[in-house]
Amino acid sequence: MVKFKEMMKLVAEKAWEMGRSDPRKIIFAAKMGLALALISLLIFLKEPFDFTRHSVWAILTVVVVFEFSIGATLNRGFNRGLGTLSAGGLAVGMGELSALAGEWEEVIVIISTFIVGFCITYAKLYPTLKPYEYGFRVFLITYCYITVSGYHSGEFLDTSISRFLLIALGAAVSLGVNICIYPIWAGEDLHNLLIKNFTGVATSLEGVVNHYLNCVEYKKVPSKILTYQAAADDPVYSGYRSAVESTSKEDSLLGFAVWEPPHGKYKMLNYPWKNYVKVSGALRHCAFMVMAMHGCILSEIQAPAEKRHVFLNELKRVGSEGARVLRELGNKVKKMEKLDRGDLLFDVHEAAEELQQKIDKKSYLLVNSELWEIGNRPRDESNDDHPKGLFHMDEDRKFLEYKSLSEAVLDLRSIEVQNNWDEKTTDDNSNNHDVPPIANENMFVKQMSWPAHVYYKPEVKAKEEESKTYESASSLSLTTFTSLLIEFVARLQNLVDSFEELGEKANFKDPLEKQGAV
Amino acid sequence: MVKFKEMMKLVAEKAWEMGRSDPRKIIFAAKMGLALALISLLIFLKEPFDFTRHSVWAILTVVVVFEFSIGATLNRGFNRGLGTLSAGGLAVGMGELSALAGEWEEVIVIISTFIVGFCITYAKLYPTLKPYEYGFRVFLITYCYITVSGYHSGEFLDTSISRFLLIALGAAVSLGVNICIYPIWAGEDLHNLLIKNFTGVATSLEGVVNHYLNCVEYKKVPSKILTYQAAADDPVYSGYRSAVESTSKEDSLLGFAVWEPPHGKYKMLNYPWKNYVKVSGALRHCAFMVMAMHGCILSEIQAPAEKRHVFLNELKRVGSEGARVLRELGNKVKKMEKLDRGDLLFDVHEAAEELQQKIDKKSYLLVNSELWEIGNRPRDESNDDHPKGLFHMDEDRKFLEYKSLSEAVLDLRSIEVQNNWDEKTTDDNSNNHDVPPIANENMFVKQMSWPAHVYYKPEVKAKEEESKTYESASSLSLTTFTSLLIEFVARLQNLVDSFEELGEKANFKDPLEKQGAV
Repeated sequence: MVKFKEMMKLVAEKAWEMGRSDPRKIIFAAKMGLALALISLLIFLKEPFDFTRHSVWAILTVVVVFEFSIGATLNRGFNRGLGTLSAGGLAVGMGELSALAGEWEEVIVIISTFIVGFCITYAKLYPTLKPYEYGFRVFLITYCYITVSGYHSGEFLDTSISRFLLIALGAAVSLGVNICIYPIWAGEDLHNLLIKNFTGVATSLEGVVNHYLNCVEYKKVPSKILTYQAAADDPVYSGYRSAVESTSKEDSLLGFAVWEPPHGKYKMLNYPWKNYVKVSGALRHCAFMVMAMHGCILSEIQAPAEKRHVFLNELKRVGSEGARVLRELGNKVKKMEKLDRGDLLFDVHEAAEELQQKIDKKSYLLVNSELWEIGNRPRDESNDDHPKGLFHMDEDRKFLEYKSLSEAVLDLRSIEVQNNWDEKTTDDNSNNHDVPPIANENMFVKQMSWPAHVYYKPEVKAKEEESKTYESASSLSLTTFTSLLIEFVARLQNLVDSFEELGEKANFKDPLEKQGAV
Repeated sequence: MVKFKEMMKLVAEKAWEMGRSDPRKIIFAAKMGLALALISLLIFLKEPFDFTRHSVWAILTVVVVFEFSIGATLNRGFNRGLGTLSAGGLAVGMGELSALAGEWEEVIVIISTFIVGFCITYAKLYPTLKPYEYGFRVFLITYCYITVSGYHSGEFLDTSISRFLLIALGAAVSLGVNICIYPIWAGEDLHNLLIKNFTGVATSLEGVVNHYLNCVEYKKVPSKILTYQAAADDPVYSGYRSAVESTSKEDSLLGFAVWEPPHGKYKMLNYPWKNYVKVSGALRHCAFMVMAMHGCILSEIQAPAEKRHVFLNELKRVGSEGARVLRELGNKVKKMEKLDRGDLLFDVHEAAEELQQKIDKKSYLLVNSELWEIGNRPRDESNDDHPKGLFHMDEDRKFLEYKSLSEAVLDLRSIEVQNNWDEKTTDDNSNNHDVPPIANENMFVKQMSWPAHVYYKPEVKAKEEESKTYESASSLSLTTFTSLLIEFVARLQNLVDSFEELGEKANFKDPLEKQGAV
């Protein structure tokens, strides 16, 4: 008894929690109760008997048609109406026909049932007809019912008509209650889902960049991530995952939203809901890059902390500018405004450019120059039969110039000194490091001071090679992270384009005009 | 009339096509027709009248319960049975109760309807109860119907019982026909979906690597890819997309498969269907890398063709070994065999290692060494207060050794010569190149022979910088591609692990034992 009391308490708590987080659910449940109570009023109708006898159809219709959003309700109602009407017509026709057959009537009824069942079920399985699945079901039920009950009473037409009236009544009650009292729109949900996805990806992006720079490592990568299941406890993962995963949700919301009449903020016939899904797809295309960056954190091969710190400022800036763009776009969708004049992407492009330049300058950190074999690339002999000597000359020049260039760079002491290097390794007081600074320094020394004479002893080389491979792979991982980040920035253009298309088609407000009005 | 004839022809063609590609659909439709015809036999029952009057319930049950797979049918049948039973119980109870209320009977009926409607609808919206949504609907329909019709006739119990018998009859016919005649199992579908995904990802991987090496470029990236919609005409894209997108399909198949009794090849109670989904998740985790690699092809920033050709053999080998592993795993799932003794991943790991070593040796191709500023990195002064002089010494040594090392590498002529470089640029006769070989050669020269004196003129430098940035980004893109490929290989381990877990739990055959038997 105590246990039962506890369980009831738990259920009540959960119910309260759900209602608090989305009050629309309570309202919807109350609307459903009201619609059912209204339809139960049928019990007071004692005449005509035939009508009340079939009252089950009105109840059935209410329960089946009453869906969470207006679009879904209209869609279901339409399916139900169409299915009933056409099945009714067919059944009445078949009934009259089979009645003509005299003693073979039963056989004809059963064979026709089989044929209709086969055709409708087969059509239902055709992919493009999938949204009308429910209509096909209703068709089958109606057809069989009218055939069977009509056979008993011989009144095919009456059964059809009274049934249709009851269904119309049920549908009218459903639609009336659902639309008139606090309507819940699928379009609104789609709108909010898009906004939520923008915020989610922005949060993930910032999280990924920060985690990467703070060298947050997963002690053990959660198997949920490895098998791509939902994991609520990791905001970085769940942020992009929900954007990546929302395809089917969006599709079903879109399917309902197109059924909805103009309402609220969406005062337009043929509101471009399709473009919402398109923007969301473009956002997903960006989210895939965030996902790939997250992959760099999940990976076993990790770039050393101090190398990451060299690019700290630049990476951080690109990350935060990228997240800003996403948040701004999400905000514009929310306010249903067009973009401001001026290039939204200017800052993030500049930041990416800067990152790229920094990489150019510091790319010696990303490679294993000890293993280079530039010095001994043989002269290309295959061009000897080239018609002009020019090409050959080019080959030579390339070779020589490259060599002198490399030396020039290495001795070059006149370039403007950039102090970023020291800034970063010294102001490194984040406590997320798994390696203390001194160890870092040593690791770095080890990597940089690989003795040159190794290369003169082939047998040593083979042994050492494996660990070198790992080391250089770990540096390449940093390159990958930055490239992915830059590719993310490149993909933003496509996102902005599809947002602008949405803004144009959906007739979003112009922020400047609005300012003028104020 | 001619138009109608043409349309009919088109419909017939489509229907034929669908049946040819999946004959199970024809069988299913025929089964449905048979079940309906069987239930129509009820019309011959003229006695007892009350029973036949409610025959609609049997028909309803057949139409609603009859689902494509056995699991779905059982699940629906269970929901329907439970919903009807509990609603019947409650309705009878409420009916007797309200009858006691005398003249307030109607009011009590309507209020109780509202309360039941509210509670059930609210519970239905709770996420964990979602799979039982159908059961809740049935509950509501039954409850209202029994209440309303019971009020008329005063025979709550009779209505309930006859209704339940009819539903049981309908369910029995459905299950009998569906299970006894050519059963279609959701588990089988899940099994095949996994195999299909393995093949799809393998094809995509090979396609991506080949496209990359042949420098296939999208003239204009299809907007369907940019907004992540299905595009059937691109096998590379659709291969990984279907693996990435199959989450919701898998979840619903899993939901049905767990309802299915042991059958066919799956002779086990509690067959580990969950592990199928887990393997598929691990495969998806790999597919994300293929997707990111595809992103390198879609990207505007492209590595020059001749640089890619340097790594042609290695990239190709990793790609084909990776695809081989995927195909082998798919094959093992198909044959339901455990892995052979010996390391499945050995070859692909070796190939990846080789690729990594090649990158190490050739990494000068991937960076823009002209912009380096190694020569003038200032000595780190912040370590002056270090307790031991050792560290300071290290700093110095690092600096000196690095310098000498770089020079040593550049002059190093004793390393074993690798001729790959020339092999690749000369045997380059693929016609997918968008730049003819000579132009390539020139481009390369231009990039390599950037005059060193630019760096002494800061004003020129600023102008040139932008184009340099693009150039080096394009080389980094190659690094990214290879890193992603290597990360793909790293993720294979996780895939193999989850496959082995599946093999263990599902008791897959041991290939050696089988051989022994033959």
